[in-house]
Amino acid sequence: MQDCIFCRIGRGEVPSLMLHRDERCFVIRDIHPLAPTHLLIIPHLHLTGLNGLGAHGEQLFGHLMAVAGEMAGRERVAATGYRLVVNQGPDSGQAVTHAHIHLMGGKRLPELG
Amino acid sequence: MQDCIFCRIGRGEVPSLMLHRDERCFVIRDIHPLAPTHLLIIPHLHLTGLNGLGAHGEQLFGHLMAVAGEMAGRERVAATGYRLVVNQGPDSGQAVTHAHIHLMGGKRLPELG
Repeated sequence: MQDCIFCRIGRGEVPSLMLHRDERCFVIRDIHPLAPTHLLIIPHLHLTGLNGLGAHGEQLFGHLMAVAGEMAGRERVAATGYRLVVNQGPDSGQAVTHAHIHLMGGKRLPELG
Repeated sequence: MQDCIFCRIGRGEVPSLMLHRDERCFVIRDIHPLAPTHLLIIPHLHLTGLNGLGAHGEQLFGHLMAVAGEMAGRERVAATGYRLVVNQGPDSGQAVTHAHIHLMGGKRLPELG
């Protein structure tokens, strides 16, 4: 998408430190971190939601989860604990409609509700 | 696992209303709901974490995400918004070590931090 900030970062149009990059996704730090470790795992593909993912989308999300697990290890929060979050739609406070996974750790995280 | 509550529910040893069941996962309501919709998407496989998922684990998690998307539609929170959460380890407050995805919606959800 022309104007999507995550698409623009993925294309290299907006400079951003990538902690990981492969053919399907990249990982950056959230610019407004809510925990000592707060990463975003972002697919290059401009997916807007989880409905009707299909086989390709399922494989992609599985890959994103595996990358999240790897990043937790690299950030040294795998043992202390971390949280993955996918926000979808208005009630979640989703800030960018391009689907992505938050990885937060490095502190005691708040209750879910 | 013999004593894991999610394994026991999956095997039918602990009666529980399943909103969805297939060969790879099942979906139940959280017994302590933190939102009007609060579901748990649970793999039959007793995975404890995201590290070293491998190809099989990636496919499984991709499937769980797709099922979560379907359930959001069935619960009528796809348009209003919802949040998926995977807790891992002490800092996250993970209550059952058998990996699972929370799906929450039906109200404005709190900030992530």
